[in-house]
Order: sequence, then C-alpha cells, then structure tokens
Amino acid sequence: MKTAMLIGRFQPLHLGHLSAIEHALRKADRLVLVIGSSQKSHEYRNPFTSGERMEMIITTLDNRKLLDRTVFAQVPDVENHALWVPLLKSLTPKFDFAISNDPLTIRLLEEAGTPVEEAPFLNREELVATEVRRRIATGGDWQPLVPPEVASYIRSINGVERIKALFAQQDANSNNKKV
Amino acid sequence: MKTAMLIGRFQPLHLGHLSAIEHALRKADRLVLVIGSSQKSHEYRNPFTSGERMEMIITTLDNRKLLDRTVFAQVPDVENHALWVPLLKSLTPKFDFAISNDPLTIRLLEEAGTPVEEAPFLNREELVATEVRRRIATGGDWQPLVPPEVASYIRSINGVERIKALFAQQDANSNNKKV
Amino acid sequence: MKTAMLIGRFQPLHLGHLSAIEHALRKADRLVLVIGSSQKSHEYRNPFTSGERMEMIITTLDNRKLLDRTVFAQVPDVENHALWVPLLKSLTPKFDFAISNDPLTIRLLEEAGTPVEEAPFLNREELVATEVRRRIATGGDWQPLVPPEVASYIRSINGVERIKALFAQQDANSNNKKV
Amino acid sequence: MKTAMLIGRFQPLHLGHLSAIEHALRKADRLVLVIGSSQKSHEYRNPFTSGERMEMIITTLDNRKLLDRTVFAQVPDVENHALWVPLLKSLTPKFDFAISNDPLTIRLLEEAGTPVEEAPFLNREELVATEVRRRIATGGDWQPLVPPEVASYIRSINGVERIKALFAQQDANSNNKKV
Amino acid sequence: MKTAMLIGRFQPLHLGHLSAIEHALRKADRLVLVIGSSQKSHEYRNPFTSGERMEMIITTLDNRKLLDRTVFAQVPDVENHALWVPLLKSLTPKFDFAISNDPLTIRLLEEAGTPVEEAPFLNREELVATEVRRRIATGGDWQPLVPPEVASYIRSINGVERIKALFAQQDANSNNKKV
Amino acid sequence: MKTAMLIGRFQPLHLGHLSAIEHALRKADRLVLVIGSSQKSHEYRNPFTSGERMEMIITTLDNRKLLDRTVFAQVPDVENHALWVPLLKSLTPKFDFAISNDPLTIRLLEEAGTPVEEAPFLNREELVATEVRRRIATGGDWQPLVPPEVASYIRSINGVERIKALFAQQDANSNNKKV
Repeated sequence: MKTAMLIGRFQPLHLGHLSAIEHALRKADRLVLVIGSSQKSHEYRNPFTSGERMEMIITTLDNRKLLDRTVFAQVPDVENHALWVPLLKSLTPKFDFAISNDPLTIRLLEEAGTPVEEAPFLNREELVATEVRRRIATGGDWQPLVPPEVASYIRSINGVERIKALFAQQDANSNNKKV
Repeated sequence: MKTAMLIGRFQPLHLGHLSAIEHALRKADRLVLVIGSSQKSHEYRNPFTSGERMEMIITTLDNRKLLDRTVFAQVPDVENHALWVPLLKSLTPKFDFAISNDPLTIRLLEEAGTPVEEAPFLNREELVATEVRRRIATGGDWQPLVPPEVASYIRSINGVERIKALFAQQDANSNNKKV
Repeated sequence: MKTAMLIGRFQPLHLGHLSAIEHALRKADRLVLVIGSSQKSHEYRNPFTSGERMEMIITTLDNRKLLDRTVFAQVPDVENHALWVPLLKSLTPKFDFAISNDPLTIRLLEEAGTPVEEAPFLNREELVATEVRRRIATGGDWQPLVPPEVASYIRSINGVERIKALFAQQDANSNNKKV
Repeated sequence: MKTAMLIGRFQPLHLGHLSAIEHALRKADRLVLVIGSSQKSHEYRNPFTSGERMEMIITTLDNRKLLDRTVFAQVPDVENHALWVPLLKSLTPKFDFAISNDPLTIRLLEEAGTPVEEAPFLNREELVATEVRRRIATGGDWQPLVPPEVASYIRSINGVERIKALFAQQDANSNNKKV
Repeated sequence: MKTAMLIGRFQPLHLGHLSAIEHALRKADRLVLVIGSSQKSHEYRNPFTSGERMEMIITTLDNRKLLDRTVFAQVPDVENHALWVPLLKSLTPKFDFAISNDPLTIRLLEEAGTPVEEAPFLNREELVATEVRRRIATGGDWQPLVPPEVASYIRSINGVERIKALFAQQDANSNNKKV
Repeated sequence: MKTAMLIGRFQPLHLGHLSAIEHALRKADRLVLVIGSSQKSHEYRNPFTSGERMEMIITTLDNRKLLDRTVFAQVPDVENHALWVPLLKSLTPKFDFAISNDPLTIRLLEEAGTPVEEAPFLNREELVATEVRRRIATGGDWQPLVPPEVASYIRSINGVERIKALFAQQDANSNNKKV
C-alpha cells in the first residue's frame, strides 16, 4: 500500500487543492492530508479555524467518495524553521512520498530525505487561495474558484462577513503601520 | 448524520479504547477521534508521537472496517485549562455529542454546553493504559491488553526498548527528586 | 450594579480613550479596563510596558475621580485568534456589556454572545494613537492629543527618546526588509 | 503617596490574605494587588481563573471599603525564574515596597533592589490556601477559613464541585504516576 | 581581566563583523560573542541556524588566532522586549562592557546600567548583512563582502540555493500579502 | 580535526563533569560543551542561570588550559521530546561524536544516526550533581565534590543561600502537594 502526503493551509479549500487531492489519490492508495498553520484562525490570511477547514474538506471529499482513503493531520507553525520537518514527521503517520509545489517545502523535505513529487494541478495554489480571499473581501465573484460545498459552508458560518471584517482591520493596520 | 467525538491520549491504543470506538460507531455515523496531548512524546507517560499513535489506530481500525467512518484531530495541551474546550472546538469539525468517562473532561464539556455520554467500556481507560506501560517497562505480559496490530506495531518501532529507557530515566529522576 | 468592559492598547492613553472611559462610567457603575497586548513593549507600535500604561491611566483617572470605579485587567495576545474571547473571559471579572468600535472585536464578542455597545467618542481610537506616536517620533506637536498627566508621565520616563529610537529602528528594518 | 505591592495566587482568597491586605493598606496609601500564576485555572492547586479570583477579591474588598485604594495586576508564571522580577516590574505600576512572607519571593525581590517587608498576618499563607482546598475537596468545614463573600461566590459558580472533580483527577494521576 | 560583549545575528558573518570582533579583542582580553535571534533559521532575514552561524565564525576566528579568547552565547528573541536585557544577562557570563552600534540595543543596555562603547567598524552592520543576502539571492557578487572562510562554508552547505529559495518564497508572500 | 560533543545541565559543574571533559579532550581536538536546560534557573534542580554555569566552567577550564579547545552551546528544553535532537543539531556546530552516559540521550542520538561513546568517568553524573545540591541545602560538606573554582564562585554569588531558599520552598510545596 502506498501513502501520499499533501500539505496546505486550505484557507479555503479551492479547485486547485481538489485537483491535487484527486491526483494524489490516483498515485497512492491513501492520502495524509495535512492542515498547515493549524493554530491560526480569524486573521486575514488565515480566516478559518482548523476545524472549519476540516469540515469544508470532509463534505467535499465525502461527496466525491474520496474521504475513505484520506487521513487528516494538523501541523502548527514552528518558529525555528529547521524544526518544521521533524515536527511534521512527529505529527503524521508514515507516508511514502510528498506532493508539493512550494519550493521551500520541497527543499526542506528533500534535505530531510523525503521523496517529493510536483503536483501538476497545484502550481498556483497560494495564488488561488489569495484570489479567493480577495474576491470575498471585495465583493467579487469567488464562488467559481471553490467546490460548491465550500461555497455553501462558508456562507453557512457567515464566513463572508468574517473575511470582510478581517480585511478591513488589516487594511487599517497596514495604513497605520509606519505612522 | 450523527457525529460522535472521543478523546484519548492512546499511549498506546488498548482494548478498552477499541471497545469505546466500536461503541461510538454504533451510536453515530461518524467519529471524530481526538489525539490528546498531541505535542507530547518520548516521555514515560507519553511514549509515542502523535503520528505513531495514529499509525497504530489506523491499522487497527482499517482491519475492522472502522477507519472509513473515522476522522482524526490532534489537540495539544494548553496551560490555561479554561481554554481547553475552546481549543478543542477550534481544532475539530462539528460533532453532536462527546463520549467520555473522565470526570473533568465531562465537567468542562458540559459547562461549555456540549452533550456528553458515558462510554460503558471505557471506565478504566487511563488505568489500562498505565498498566500496559508498566508491563512493557517491567517485562510483564502486556500483549493481551492491546489489539494484535498495536502489539506488532510497537515491536516494529522498538517501542519496548523506548518505554524501558523512559521508565529507567523517570525512575532515576524520581529517586533524585528531593535530594 | 452594572459593569462595563473597555479594551485598548493605550499606547499611549489619549483624549479619545479618556472620553470613552468617561462615557462608559456614565453608562455603568463600574468599568473593567482591559490593557490589551499586555505582553508587548519597547516596539514602535507598543512602546510602553503594561505597567507604564497603567501608571498613565491611574494618574489621569485619579485626578478626575474616575479611578475608584475602575478595575484593571491585562490580556496578552494569543496566536489562535479563536481563543481570544475565551482568554479575555478567563482574565476578567464578570461584566454586563462591552464598549468597542473595533469591527473585529465587536464581531468576536457578539459571536460569543457578549452584548457590545459602540463608543461614540472612540471611533478614531487607533488612528489617534498612531498619530500621537508619529508626532512624538517626528518632533510634532503631540501633547494636545493626550491628557496633561500622560504628557508629563511620558516625559518623566524619557518616553520621547524611546519612541524616537524605536521609530529609527523600525525605519531601518523596513527599508532593509526585502533586500 | 506610598504604594505597596502584595502578590498571591488567591486560590482562593482566605482570611490570611485579607489580613495582609488590610495591613498593607494601613502602611500605604495604595495597594497593587498582584494575581500570580494568572494563566492557570482548572487544576487542583489553581482551581479558579484569574477573573474569578478577581471577582472574589473585588466583592470582599468593596464591602470593606478597601477596593478604592487597590489596583490589580496579573502576572503569569515564567519558565526562566531569573526573569520573574523583570516580568513583574513590566506588568505593574511603580510601587515603593513589597509585602511578602515567601522566602524565595523575598530573595528575588531583594536581589533586584526592591524593599520588602514581612507581612505579620500572612506567614502561613500557602498552608491556609492548601487547607481550604483540601477541606473543600474532602467535604470538610472550609467556610470559616475564608471571608463570607468568598464562600458565597465559590458556591455560586459551583466551585465546590469543580474542586472535587480536580481533586479526584489529581488523585488518579498521582496513583498512576509511576506505573 | 577585561571582558567585552558583542551581539549580532551574523546572517551571515561579514567583514564588518570581523572588524568589530578584532576591535573588541584589542580593547578586551576576552569576548563574549552573542548569537542573537538564535532560535531563527530558514527564513530570508535569518537563513542560517545558530549552529551554522557558529561554524562560520569558528573557522574564521580560528584562522586568525582569535578563537581562543572568544566565548559563545546564544540568545533567542523574546516577545516582551522589556525582558530582553534580563534574558541576555541570564544567558551570558559576566562582561565589563558591550560593543554595539544599534541605537535600541545601546538604549536598552544603558537603561539597565551596562556600559556600551560604539564599534567604529560596525556602523553599517545590518546594512551589510542585508546587502550580502540580497546579492546572494539575486546572483550578485557577494563573496568580497565576507571572509573567504564564510564564502566557502556557505557554498559547502548549499547556502546559496537556500537563500534563493527563501527569497523566492518571501517575494511570493509579499506580493500576495494584501490580496 | 575531530570534534566531540558533551551535554550536561552543570547544576553545578562537579568533578565527574570535569573528568568527562578531560576525557573528551583527550579523544578529540575540540569539544562542543552543551549547557542543557539552558532556559532554567532559580529552581531547586536548576539553581544557576546558563550564564552563571558558563562562568563556573570558564574559570575551571581556563585554569587547566582546556578552555581554548572548548566551544559553548546552549540548548533549552523542548516540550515535544521528538524534536530534541533536531533542536540540538540546529544549535550546535558540527561534531563527530557525542559523549554521554544518559540512556535516553544515547537512545535519541543513536536513533538520529549520531555516534555516541560512553564516558567512563561520568556514570554517576546526575547522582553527583544531586548530591552536591543536597549537601549545600542541608549544610553538608559539598566542596570536595566540585573543583575549587566552582566552590569559590558559588560562594561569591551567594549560591549557598539561594539553594537553601529554593530547597525550603520545594519542601513546602511538596508537603502541600496533595492537600
């Protein structure tokens, strides 16, 4: 049995993530899906709690019969980045290879001897999540970028209002930053 | 769909835990299985990493066709115990009720408005885990207390040697504690 | 007896804060005054220690006969923002309603079921504190923005020099940030 | 104006604490009352949150006309004990002298150049708090050891049940500690 | 015997640092060399671990017969800046004076009663380290700015590739920051 | 050139440590001497700050011409013990082998692929440090167990009084622990 590992912040889960998950589950029998920055929530770059992110992913994968072969892990950030891979390993069940397109993640995993494959559908992962949040914050058309289950979950927890409030606050802070 | 939540340290998973998990999955459609003290490892009361504990549980539940309906979450300890339930909630997907026999866990969850059911098979949960570790440390007959998958996993990662080393060290520290 | 709660960073206490405190003490019999980001000091956005901020407030309120009905609490930042309201509640005596103009604070408190009233005089709270620090840092006319007690306290602890040093350092860091 | 500083964990406030506070307010015009181990709660040695402890103290002092001259501060524990006095100083307004009977506190404060006076009524401070908790946990007659306001506050928040649950859990853990 | 103390992040050690160390060892018999931000690594402003930074410095000083009179200490950042000098003191052996050109460091040390001398060769310390990292990241001619031992150490651990990856990631994050 | 690594808490440095250091410097050209639990001080098992411990060691080694070949590193404790070896490696320059008699340290280092040699003179390392502290606390004859430089350093900083105060406080706490 072959196990893949895929890490993301999933703020929120979007179609690029979903493609990467589907890709991983074609290449492997089981997927360890790691919720990164798991201790973060209610800030503009990380609006949703780890539990909320899991809920979006569970509903989406369940509807596509992908949940059965997926196992979750939750990895908080660590201040000393040299400890990030050891922390990840202490918090995840064994996996055979990682899937990533983030150059630093690839570097750190490879330095630690973990095989890494690039995810063809994930290249613009962070860009897309950023774009989803920007559209939500500014009243743009964000729903086509995420699975329908995610859109309806975000609406059900008043996530649009939360992201707008976080955006407004960040805006104020960044204007005031220097003065 | 009904979701139960069960929390334990699983140091290691034993037959009492397994009965409780089976009980939970009879009462609910899905189980959120929470690895408590997830940041702890390599100490006598917490010998295994969160990832190792997940591995034991995955193999055991998979063989019993229980893994498909189980979702993992990982909750570290928090120094201010008044924040433990809010932390748990931020790290877990929504659940309908909790299953526990620990009086303090029951108290904290109920104060926070979460319904809790007692787990008939779990009553002596901590006692059994303690007994497993004690038997491993002192060369006793520990294997009948755990599922066979757990016994063979612990042997495969030299877990017996690890627990003996941790026991020896704790012993030395506790003799020296006062002097 | 009715108790209000007002939270601010008070870096430093300015006339907008003072109006809001006076407003709160007209609406309530007692005020829980929360020093936010209490663990921060000696950085440009947070130049004063929690103790120094308390000293400014004590002298100012005492002279206006407002200290008797004021109780202090000190709340540090928390990385997981989902825990901020529970932390605040664990560190404060019971209060009947909060007074705030910060949209995120209002959101978080209301989600947690705490009644919140807007403070008419506080709207530009953060802007004013930012402006006070900017004027201090750049030699502008900052003293009209704060109660006279605060101005004389800041001078007595060489706070002007401290803020200038912190401003200079932030300036250097931000120029160098990317290169 | 003379300011005294008194530090305690107040788990819970008892008659020894109250005598010491009264003593301090005879020797000084104002008292900085420091809630120590402010980040702890819901454990047997620290059953009450910082906010709950403040509430007990506020009611008790208010009834005795002592609240007006009292200012609260909250100091969490720090792992590096060499930083405890600097942390205390960063979190408290200026005070002229400290009142303590704890030999280590006296030592640390004096090494840092802070004048310390012994509190005649406080000598057995920790012993009394310990005895209060023990009596609550074991159904003994605890109410004569605390001000009546504290007794009624503890009952009103179901504090007796909480302490019993924490005691039971500690008991289990300590039996299991080694095995 | 006279001991000097010099603090830097040494990301990486450059010729300005080396001049300052030589200067310190002309003014004192022994030097306490403090690795600041010791807990940081693998981020663009702090690419090297504390151990890697020590290795660069050891080789460079050893070749110049300066290592014998140098003692290392490692000081992590602290969130409450008011505790930085006490932390530094708890982690270093006694020294007679500090050498620094950073205005805030000078301020904090002088407020704490430590004599500070300006380092004539160090004035542009942070600027030079920033420039070294920028040139490494962008393929510029960085090697003339550092001792030859540092250049060859950085190459030997693939430090150029690491800094380029960290730079690329920071770049992406900063573009995405707001949106 | 061959580099050894030796880790200890050095609370305080005693003759067993000194023998182990001398042994290490016969087997290697250079020694990385790691101050463990570097963030601890002013508690009975860890009475001295990291800086104080370095001072004792510096004087002792300097008098024996061993300081020139010794390099210090400081490693704090980490809650997740699975991260201890990665943390140690991030904070130390490269070494060829470790010297230890602690079974857990040996286990963790060997699991991480680091060669470890047993230190013939160090076997009772923790026992001796414990005995030194016990004798200091109880007025016993402790000075023959440590190098004369350490004895005179401890006296010069009033270390005997500090250890007695810490012992008294621990004693009180441990009597009260359960009640």
